[in-house]
Amino acid sequence: MTTSLNSLTPVCPTHGVLSPVPGTGVQLSDGFWNTRRQLNTDRLLDHCDTWIDRMGWYDAFRVASGQAPDRTFKGKLFTDADVYKLMEALAWDLAQRPDPAREQRFAEITELIAAAQEDDGYLNTFYGPQGRDARYTDLAHGHELYCAGHLFQAAVARLRAGKDDKLVSTAIALADRLYEDYAAGLIASSDGHPEIEVGLIELARATGDDRYRDFAKQLIETRGHQTFEHHAIGHEYYLDDIPVRDAEVLRGHVVRAMYLTAAVVDLATDTDDAPLLETVQKQWENTWARRTHITGGMGTRHLGESFGSDFELTPDRAYNETCGAVGAIMVAWRLLLATGESHYADAIERLLYNMVATSPNAEGDRFFYVNPLLAREPAIAVEENEAPFRKDTQRANWFWVACCPTNVVRMLASLPAYFATVDGSALTLQQYSAGKIETLLEDGRTIRLAVTTEYPWDGTIRLGILETTGEWTLRLRVPEWAHGAHLTVNGEREDVPPGYTSSTRTWNADDEVVLHLPMKPRVVVPDDRINALRGTVAVERGPLVYCVESLTSDPDAVDLDRFRLNVAHDIEERPAHNLSDVAVALRARGVLADETYTDQNWPYQQASSTDSVATTEAVVELIPYYAWSNRGSSTMRVWIPTL
Amino acid sequence: MTTSLNSLTPVCPTHGVLSPVPGTGVQLSDGFWNTRRQLNTDRLLDHCDTWIDRMGWYDAFRVASGQAPDRTFKGKLFTDADVYKLMEALAWDLAQRPDPAREQRFAEITELIAAAQEDDGYLNTFYGPQGRDARYTDLAHGHELYCAGHLFQAAVARLRAGKDDKLVSTAIALADRLYEDYAAGLIASSDGHPEIEVGLIELARATGDDRYRDFAKQLIETRGHQTFEHHAIGHEYYLDDIPVRDAEVLRGHVVRAMYLTAAVVDLATDTDDAPLLETVQKQWENTWARRTHITGGMGTRHLGESFGSDFELTPDRAYNETCGAVGAIMVAWRLLLATGESHYADAIERLLYNMVATSPNAEGDRFFYVNPLLAREPAIAVEENEAPFRKDTQRANWFWVACCPTNVVRMLASLPAYFATVDGSALTLQQYSAGKIETLLEDGRTIRLAVTTEYPWDGTIRLGILETTGEWTLRLRVPEWAHGAHLTVNGEREDVPPGYTSSTRTWNADDEVVLHLPMKPRVVVPDDRINALRGTVAVERGPLVYCVESLTSDPDAVDLDRFRLNVAHDIEERPAHNLSDVAVALRARGVLADETYTDQNWPYQQASSTDSVATTEAVVELIPYYAWSNRGSSTMRVWIPTL
Repeated sequence: MTTSLNSLTPVCPTHGVLSPVPGTGVQLSDGFWNTRRQLNTDRLLDHCDTWIDRMGWYDAFRVASGQAPDRTFKGKLFTDADVYKLMEALAWDLAQRPDPAREQRFAEITELIAAAQEDDGYLNTFYGPQGRDARYTDLAHGHELYCAGHLFQAAVARLRAGKDDKLVSTAIALADRLYEDYAAGLIASSDGHPEIEVGLIELARATGDDRYRDFAKQLIETRGHQTFEHHAIGHEYYLDDIPVRDAEVLRGHVVRAMYLTAAVVDLATDTDDAPLLETVQKQWENTWARRTHITGGMGTRHLGESFGSDFELTPDRAYNETCGAVGAIMVAWRLLLATGESHYADAIERLLYNMVATSPNAEGDRFFYVNPLLAREPAIAVEENEAPFRKDTQRANWFWVACCPTNVVRMLASLPAYFATVDGSALTLQQYSAGKIETLLEDGRTIRLAVTTEYPWDGTIRLGILETTGEWTLRLRVPEWAHGAHLTVNGEREDVPPGYTSSTRTWNADDEVVLHLPMKPRVVVPDDRINALRGTVAVERGPLVYCVESLTSDPDAVDLDRFRLNVAHDIEERPAHNLSDVAVALRARGVLADETYTDQNWPYQQASSTDSVATTEAVVELIPYYAWSNRGSSTMRVWIPTL
Repeated sequence: MTTSLNSLTPVCPTHGVLSPVPGTGVQLSDGFWNTRRQLNTDRLLDHCDTWIDRMGWYDAFRVASGQAPDRTFKGKLFTDADVYKLMEALAWDLAQRPDPAREQRFAEITELIAAAQEDDGYLNTFYGPQGRDARYTDLAHGHELYCAGHLFQAAVARLRAGKDDKLVSTAIALADRLYEDYAAGLIASSDGHPEIEVGLIELARATGDDRYRDFAKQLIETRGHQTFEHHAIGHEYYLDDIPVRDAEVLRGHVVRAMYLTAAVVDLATDTDDAPLLETVQKQWENTWARRTHITGGMGTRHLGESFGSDFELTPDRAYNETCGAVGAIMVAWRLLLATGESHYADAIERLLYNMVATSPNAEGDRFFYVNPLLAREPAIAVEENEAPFRKDTQRANWFWVACCPTNVVRMLASLPAYFATVDGSALTLQQYSAGKIETLLEDGRTIRLAVTTEYPWDGTIRLGILETTGEWTLRLRVPEWAHGAHLTVNGEREDVPPGYTSSTRTWNADDEVVLHLPMKPRVVVPDDRINALRGTVAVERGPLVYCVESLTSDPDAVDLDRFRLNVAHDIEERPAHNLSDVAVALRARGVLADETYTDQNWPYQQASSTDSVATTEAVVELIPYYAWSNRGSSTMRVWIPTL
């Protein structure tokens, strides 16, 4: 398998089972994801640009290049990376939707960045001359190489858009500087926050310069020997507790874990290291089976923004950082390309609909940073134009630490590149959206399809063949939840289990393929070992996790602490109340416990003294989790106690 | 009600319903608490002294006084306080068990402290001349006034032991310096960590100098206006989110909350401020009813060592800092004295048996810092002579941050002072231990009692009257869990409900009073609003919370993830296996789910697809929670899922 090194796609492995269909080959039209992609183009990108400017993160480059006086505040070590992540997002977006004004803005920011680069190629606004700390003096916490990695990813985006410009040369000069300084022993370890590794490998792929991959390999292979400074959650915070080849599960800081793991998959793939790939697959499998929330969110713990131990999946304070979901998609996509196993695409779908889609609001000016599954009290409100220090708030315009917004915009800008893959003479649709897909098979034949669907609201996915030559294989992913799906090819029906359908034939332009996914609401039961979820259920429909939301502005709102779902009743589909972005809401029946229920002065009583509680019938509305907190202050539950 | 200002007791309110019987009036003999008090005298005090020396925390005083070169490490802002807490513990212990060598050591440390005091009375090893930071420059984080508060508490202990020595004069000089600097506007706020307030008020009580109380009042009343720097959990971390009179529940950092609240009770009591006292009672009531774990532990969250919101009582990672329990006892004891309500003494009993007793190991050389209710994986082992940075470990000799060991030793040293109270012509036994109690009633009559009991293993508490004159009232606390208790006075039986018994008569030296508390194991059910505990039960016996512990060294150990308790079976009493410190262990029956149970690649499945799991009968041993992790590496559960 070979892929053009510079297809418009974030990940171009040199080996592996599947090749990505480039973003240029996937045209999303009306529907769930195109709305978000368009919001990104129209609103989110400029929003990030404005806020980065307002926060002074461009000024940091001006100070470093001597264009502005000394920065007074030195606390934020990683804001260069936010500039680079925005540049990456702009590069993807410009490649698909050229816009001279935006191109001009891109060039301006490029000049700002390049001006801060020192003569020897070094670039970081926090380290260097002019009273700044010396290079490589705080690798554990300084985010110095981390920032470089994000510049490399932005440069790769630019290269793959066919623009070998100053951003690219700036990134390469920095990569060469770091490569040489590492070789010379000036850089004693990797960065406490992995990211340079994944940036270096993709830069190697995009430039053909294998030194960068070798550099990444050394950083990866030397990690895990507890060399970083102590941390309140131990060396696992940095993934520095054990070497990657010895680890059985992901742990520590979720985003660190995901960025590192993405690079490890890249390394294993490019170097044909089957044992390493198998190790990472096992790590992912254990993490997905025991350390992942139903939304795909990862990181139960606020302290260290970190994974809990197995089955520590508490909804109350689930941290579930948005960046962790972006990182998990990075890993799952690489594993999908490396192995061709559909469950990785299932994971991506879950993460996209229930984590990535949850972060921005419908207006495109606020983001969630953390994504708990329970809001017993309404989340803390954030004023307009406030960038809070704490992260467990309602959606905010920006955050004092703002890794998440820039991660969301780069993900949405490159989103079409995650929808389809080719291998040999097969095309596989990994995700579903209305639109058109055009790709080359490996032998050079061009295939064009039209997809018509209202997924995720409706389960019918209709494919028309627009361009075809000879025999080839069409595969469609049947999601793991879609038991009872069926496929019709020109009216001929076949039941299809979760996994991939496979239809090989000499296709004609009037062939019609329709995948029918069952969209009945599903009541989902948690593994009994998850303490925090025992005695509760969640409701899903299609790829969407639903939640009950109770608006504080609604005088008839149900007190979610007192609601108990009756699973004997069917869940009904209903139009959503006052949510334009939701086509299907649900209604569930249960009971509301009497208010006297709240009157105990000690919450642990002898079994015999627990009186049964009076209840009344009650009905609640369920909405997709991604849409919560869009109608104002509210309480919310994904996991609902049952009768 | 009046109390001698210098009885040997940590808290001497100028008003209130009850007066403490001084520590000198309570002689513990053989039994649960005397074992621990003796361990404190024999082992823990010297252990702390040795470790404070080893960690360089005495050296900080030597550096400040110019007796040693500059300290190189500046990270630990609060270690002066650990020295002071040890001094407080030594002072209480010396007052009850004079020991010339220990008295000499006390004098040596006093000299060390006094030498570091500046000419104007200021004293803190982290602030001052010789390149240190300037005074009062980081009140939010610097622990500057906090350290002073602990010195004041140590000085009070010394004063109440009748030793008006150099430690006392040093403390008073510092108190005067701070009082004047605050009055002059040099100290802009209180300390981010409350403690000075409770120290100041007790110093006012012990010296009769009301300026200190006024100073504390100002610090308390001006708090709550969000003046401290932002924190990841918000201003509530510092209890600086809302003024104390407006708060309805305790929140933020648990130890900060408890130290502040103790001072607020003191202030309300001494100033006869009934509305303020009522406010604090309500805060305690809400905290106890909704934010306290079954052990009395508080602080669900690791981030910020802080309270969760209501019913966020997750066992997996419950932080439950040992210091928080010491702080909660400080508050509950003050509320008990102020109100005479027995439930505060119930809370103290729960905290003592299940939190304070849990911290030190039986050998007296290791401590728990955090006290979770579930160890799904064995806690992290700590090598001998290692002081870990992280706190979620097995018991350790010491910690990099070591507030807890010194809090435990000062609590154990002053423990007898928490056992009994007098008011008018009544004596109340608040806690039970074998021993002797001697006190004056308010009219000056002397009463002496002998207590014979094997509590908490046996529920029989037998009292003999050793000295008596005329009529007086004997009250005994019947714990809130002791439904079905009865009292016999000279053989005459009376059923007694939870609360206080009350027997008024002209007692004779041969009168015998016996309280019978029912000690049958109790199965306890959590409030259904606690997500993390739904579908589980805990087992208690007497004042002790029990847990199941599964030793990793035991080849027949039960996998606690797979055990389900059958509540239909009685819990049986059994001798403990290999635990000399436990007289009664328990045995419970249930089932063990099949191992295949663990084989799912996604932990949330549709209800219909959840197969029933094969099980086999199983029996587990339960031991008191305080004794867990004493027999080596183990997993542990307080809350046990039921069938």
